[in-house]
Order: sequence, then C-alpha cells, then structure tokens
Amino acid sequence: MADIDTLLARRAKLLGAKAPLFYDRPLHIVRGEGVWLYDADGRRYLDAYNNVPVVGHCHPEVVDALARQAATLNVHTRYLHETILDYGERLVAKFDASLSMVMFVCTGSEANDQALRIARTHTGKQGMVVTNLTYHGNTTAVDAVSPLFYGRDVINPEVRSIPYPDRYRAPPGLEGRALTDHYLAALERAIASLEESGVGFAGLLLCSIFANEGLPDVPADFMPRALELTHRAGGLFIADEVQAGFGRTGRMWGHEIMGVVPDIVTLGKPMGNGHPIAAVVTRAELLEEFRERVFFFNTFAGNPVSCAVAAKVLDILERDRLMENAKRVGDHLRAGLARLAAKHAIIGDVRGQGLWVGIELVGDRVAKTPAASEAQRVVNEMKARGVLMGRIGEFDNVLKIRPPLPIGTAEADFLLDTLDGVLAAL
Amino acid sequence: MADIDTLLARRAKLLGAKAPLFYDRPLHIVRGEGVWLYDADGRRYLDAYNNVPVVGHCHPEVVDALARQAATLNVHTRYLHETILDYGERLVAKFDASLSMVMFVCTGSEANDQALRIARTHTGKQGMVVTNLTYHGNTTAVDAVSPLFYGRDVINPEVRSIPYPDRYRAPPGLEGRALTDHYLAALERAIASLEESGVGFAGLLLCSIFANEGLPDVPADFMPRALELTHRAGGLFIADEVQAGFGRTGRMWGHEIMGVVPDIVTLGKPMGNGHPIAAVVTRAELLEEFRERVFFFNTFAGNPVSCAVAAKVLDILERDRLMENAKRVGDHLRAGLARLAAKHAIIGDVRGQGLWVGIELVGDRVAKTPAASEAQRVVNEMKARGVLMGRIGEFDNVLKIRPPLPIGTAEADFLLDTLDGVLAAL
Repeated sequence: MADIDTLLARRAKLLGAKAPLFYDRPLHIVRGEGVWLYDADGRRYLDAYNNVPVVGHCHPEVVDALARQAATLNVHTRYLHETILDYGERLVAKFDASLSMVMFVCTGSEANDQALRIARTHTGKQGMVVTNLTYHGNTTAVDAVSPLFYGRDVINPEVRSIPYPDRYRAPPGLEGRALTDHYLAALERAIASLEESGVGFAGLLLCSIFANEGLPDVPADFMPRALELTHRAGGLFIADEVQAGFGRTGRMWGHEIMGVVPDIVTLGKPMGNGHPIAAVVTRAELLEEFRERVFFFNTFAGNPVSCAVAAKVLDILERDRLMENAKRVGDHLRAGLARLAAKHAIIGDVRGQGLWVGIELVGDRVAKTPAASEAQRVVNEMKARGVLMGRIGEFDNVLKIRPPLPIGTAEADFLLDTLDGVLAAL
Repeated sequence: MADIDTLLARRAKLLGAKAPLFYDRPLHIVRGEGVWLYDADGRRYLDAYNNVPVVGHCHPEVVDALARQAATLNVHTRYLHETILDYGERLVAKFDASLSMVMFVCTGSEANDQALRIARTHTGKQGMVVTNLTYHGNTTAVDAVSPLFYGRDVINPEVRSIPYPDRYRAPPGLEGRALTDHYLAALERAIASLEESGVGFAGLLLCSIFANEGLPDVPADFMPRALELTHRAGGLFIADEVQAGFGRTGRMWGHEIMGVVPDIVTLGKPMGNGHPIAAVVTRAELLEEFRERVFFFNTFAGNPVSCAVAAKVLDILERDRLMENAKRVGDHLRAGLARLAAKHAIIGDVRGQGLWVGIELVGDRVAKTPAASEAQRVVNEMKARGVLMGRIGEFDNVLKIRPPLPIGTAEADFLLDTLDGVLAAL
C-alpha cells in the first residue's frame, strides 16, 4: 500500500496540485461499510460527513441490484425499458401532485443546468436570483449562479445574488415579519435590477435548506413569501434538493419543511447512493414546453442500471424507515449538542433538521465572532480521533454533520463524546 | 410484460411526449449480451448501432469489476484512493506525452462543458468555432455550440459555425489543397468575426471524426492546418472524442487518424461501457491554470467504482485486441458494402474507419440527391429483420453503423445479407 506522500505526488501530477482534498493531512480511504470508512492502515472512521451514501456505504442490497441489472441490460432511453417508468412513477409520486414529470440526468450539476434551461425557455428571460453564498454545481451556466467560491463581488449580467436568510446573524433589531421583509426587499431589488437591465427575471434558485450557506435558521415565512414574490414577478421557483432530498431532514424533501411547492425541483447526490444518477422533477406543462422547443437527450441518464439502483435506494429508505431514523437520531444529536453547548462556550448555535446538523462556533456568544480557525482544528482533530465531519458557512465556522441515514444513537454518542473531548482540548 | 402502447402512454405522461425514441414503432428491450439485444418478445437484434457498450453489452468481467468495487468502496475524490490514480495514469499514457493530465466528469456533455471553461479561462475570450452540423452535448454552454438540432440559422454571439469538411459533397471543381483552403477560409472568417465583435476567439471544437456530420471523408490536411490556424489566432484546439475514442476507429483516438495533437481532448460514451464516466485530458499547464483560477469539484466523478469499471474496459480492449478487430471487421464490412454498392445504385458512398461505417444513400449518383426517406425505411426495415442501425448527416440520409467492438465477420455478414435484402425490396 503506497504511503500518503507518494499518492499526493502522483495525484498532483495527474489531477493537478489544486484538485480539492480534505484535511491538513489527507485520508487514504480503502473500504466503506454502513456508517464507517476504513483507511489504508486499517483505522476506522465514523462517517458523519458524507450525504451521498444515504443508505450506508456499499449497501449489499444496492450492490446486488446494481450488479444484477448491469448483467441484464444497460441501454439508453431511446429504446423502451420498464425500469425507468417503474422508478420514475414512484419518484414523482413522492412530490406534490403538480410535480408529475421527470427528466433524468447524471449529476446535480446537470440537473441544475437543465432546470435553468427550463426556466429560461419558459420565461424567455435569462436572469436568475440566488443567494450570495450558494453553490449549485460546476457547468458553465451553473458556475455562474454559484458565488460561494468566488466571493460576493463576482458579477454576472444574468445573475443577482441576495443575502441568505439567517435568524442567528440577522441585522440587529429585526425579527419576525420585519426580518423576512428585510430579506425579501433584497429579492425585490434583485428582480427589479434584472428587469431594468433588460436581461429579465427567469427565476429564483434556492437550496431548500441553504446547506452551503451554513444551514441557517430560516424565518418560517421566508420561503412561501419568496415563492409568492417570484411568481408575481413572472419567474419560476427552483428548489435545489441535491443536498436536502431523500429523507435526510426527516421529511422526504427540504421544501416540505420550508412549506412550499416549487415549480422545478433538482435531485442528485443521495439518489443512487453514489451511483451517478440525478433528475429534474417539474410540472407537466413546463417539461412538455421544454421538450417541444429544445432537443434534449442524455446518453447515460435514466438507463436501467441507474434506475434499478435508485429504486433499491427508495426500497431501503422506506423499509428501514430511515426518514424516521434521521429525525430520531438527529434530534438525539442536537439534544447532546445542547448539553455540550452548556459546557463549551465556543458553541454559539446548534441547528438543523434530521441528520443535517450545523454547529456554529464563535469566539464570543454575544458578538458572535466566527471561530473559523478553531473549526478547522476541530475538523482535523475529530478526524484524528476517528470521526469525519466538515465545515461550511460564510465564515467557515459552521461544523457540518450529515452521516449516512442508518446511523444509530450509539454512533451519535461516540461523535458527541469525541467532540466533547476535542472541544475540551482546544 | 406490458405491451408497447401501454409503455408509450406511461412514458409520455412521465417523461414527456417529445422525449426522443427510436423507430417508427419503438423497441422494448429487456436484455443485452455481447453484440445482441433482446426485446420483450424474445426476438434478438444484432446491435450495429450502440457505440457505448464498446466491449459488448453486459460484459461479465465489467459487471464483476463494477460489483466488486461497489461492494468495497465508493467515495468522492477529496479522499485519496488509488483506483483513480492507477486508471488515470494508464489513460493519459495512451495520449501524446504533452497530454498528461486528466479531469474526471460523468458525461460527455460535462466533459465538453469543462473543456469550454478551460479554453475560455486560458484565452480570456469567449468565442468558439464549431461546424454547422455538430452536436457536443446538452448543458446550456454546450447546447450553444451544438447547431445540429436547431438548423444553420441559430446565432449565438459567442459561437460561429463553419461548413464541415466533406470531399463527397465538396463544392464543384475543388479538390486537394484548394478544397482545404476553401474550408479553412470559412474558419478564418469565423475567427475574424469573433475578434471583430469583441467576443474574441477562444478555440475550435471539433469531433475528431465528424460523427454527427455524417462521418464525411475529410481532406487529409484539413485537421493539421485547422489546428495550425487556430493556434496562430491564439485559440485552443479541442478534440471531442466522446464518439470517436477508445479504439472504434482502429486507432485509440480519432485525432491520431486526423494527424493532430489537440490541446484538449474530451472523452465519454464508451469509457465505462455504459457506466457514467467521462473525462477531459489536457496539457498540465492548462489544467493547472484552470484549477488555480476556478473551483472545480464533481461529487461522482472519478469515484473508485467508475475508475474500476473504466480500467476493466481498457483491460478487455487491450487483451482482446479489440482495436485490431475493429479495423479487421470494419474493413470486412466496407468491402462487403462496396460489393452491395455494385448491386444497389442507391448506395452513393461508403466510408469510415474501423467500426465506424457511414453509407450515404442517394437517389442519383451524379446529382447525389439525398435519399432520406429511403434511409428511414432502411433503418426501420433492418430493425424488423433483426439489425439495429441509425442514420445521420446533413440530409439524414447516411446510414450509421457502429456496433460493439467484439463483433465478428459472421455477424457482419448477417448485417450485409440483411441490408442486401432490404435494399433489394425498397
């Protein structure tokens, strides 16, 4: 087994020195099982980071479904096959009745790219509004609506960014309806700016749980009112469920928690438990119109293997009641984190839904000074002690916990105990 | 087993009435093996269409590699794993030494989208030149460089299209260097137009074998001189090998046949024999520069499962000498087609390399009047007699043959005999 420095050198030469890697000292992972990952030295890590293997790493039933279908048939969708119909009908049945059609793609980036195309085709306008700290993917068009890695000053004539809603870091003195008014005023200005510039307003694209924004505590009326405002201005509301979807929040979709029915929903990461499948779910008239005006075909998307895998993921989610588990263990985690907050002043806020947990670290609870370097140390030290997690947010000071959904309370307690020790040693 | 009309009705409701399908009466495919596909009634079809299952449908060794890796580990590339390095190093070794780095993605569309981003980042300019009858994929940016389905009149300020090189339908009186001069003059005008408009010239994007253009007979000096002209104008030369690559032409890459070393190469379809994996291969300084200036990460791309599958595809290509087989059986097919051309005046031209075969049907060999409706009838009638093929080209009159590479001469003879019968009955 090669050592890490050898692998790093080969990787820099082949993929580029700047190809992103985790941790000050990267991990060489060789095996996964359930909620555990194993490195080349045989050390095991509780995976509290990865939201893709939603039913657990290398789930034997998913592997079996993958292998059986791959041994039987794998073709594109210009021949008829039943797997795509069986899965697709089952998938759209999990949405509001208005969202009855699906377009399959392979990645969340492709899903968001096609969602932009559908919105722009429908409205005949190009302008999108997104938050100032979001990431929706990596194609040319989707990169342009992803300010996260470029800072707030990047301007694209077809994009306006608005502050993400955040009750923890709300402007002083604002709360309740007035706080939502404040955030919606920015949306109104953005729409007006797009219309005045001649680009026009095509739609609002939001992650249903603002995952990259640091999983903020969103005013309850924000999403419904943002959707209403978007519709009044003639735009479409796109909910990016690539991170939120498939039960992690304790509900099937993040937008259910947010109290809205979007016009377009994009799906990705957990959909195939790591197999590349993604989708756009939308209203019939929008997809029919798009298909009427645009030629769209994706060679790999919706193939029988991808659909068989995605169907097995749904089977397991339902049979093992993983949504309920996400809610139960997520609540257990947050209760434990509330106890840790009583011991460790650095914990400024604990939030999230289900197995989406954000822990905001601050130097001072009143001033809320972001503790970014401490968050970095915590993430690296947790790794050293056998727990994988990440950090995110405007100030990179929000610890991000999102384990595979079959995690139990024993593993959650291991995480809590480990975090207690790491925070105590900071 | 549901009947075809029931499946069509379900499909229209779920995916859209305009979601593309093959054949006047679509096929319901349930099983694949080697070069054969089987429909729900148990009928078998020689697959002379599908270029994705390059080592044959449902190859047991590919399925085994897929299942074994999926049971062991499937994670993203921000942890170190060796599969991506082992495969990637082996892949780039199959290119000119200057093309030493790789970026993995999941689809050919994603590969071309990132290639555009690399070229635009490097040149600081936005303008691309493509042919007037090409298709490179389906993202917003790639759709804009894909005039095939939109006709010649679609204008995008960042794109200029030029006539594709074609010795069979060359302007009267032009041949040799003068013919190439004619096509290159269009490229020069396109570059000048982009520069004059202020958009600037970022690069030339060409399918190495002009697959969607109908696999034309390209003047031998076209590609080298187009590359030279592109470089002289400060642009990058992108070779789209999504269709041409991985041995089908009898060479590993189409650009080898065309006598050029591109700046950027994009790969897709056959790379994983149907598993969604694709890539951009390019020079170190271009990828390093891109990664320095742009954040790029793709959750699914380069995961250990995709890389294990792609490595097994290379194993089989090499061990079974499928490139040599492609040349041998392809030559056998073309020789047989030449004999059919002596019997059937509708065959205007037979061309291609390896197991890429184009047969241009014409109403009159002198006037070269395209026989599109006859081509459509041939494709449907071949299907009825158990052979799958397609049609393509400016006039939809070019029969397209591109079977899985393990096809033997016996199956090629079955195709030839069937085609003989279909042409005789036209």
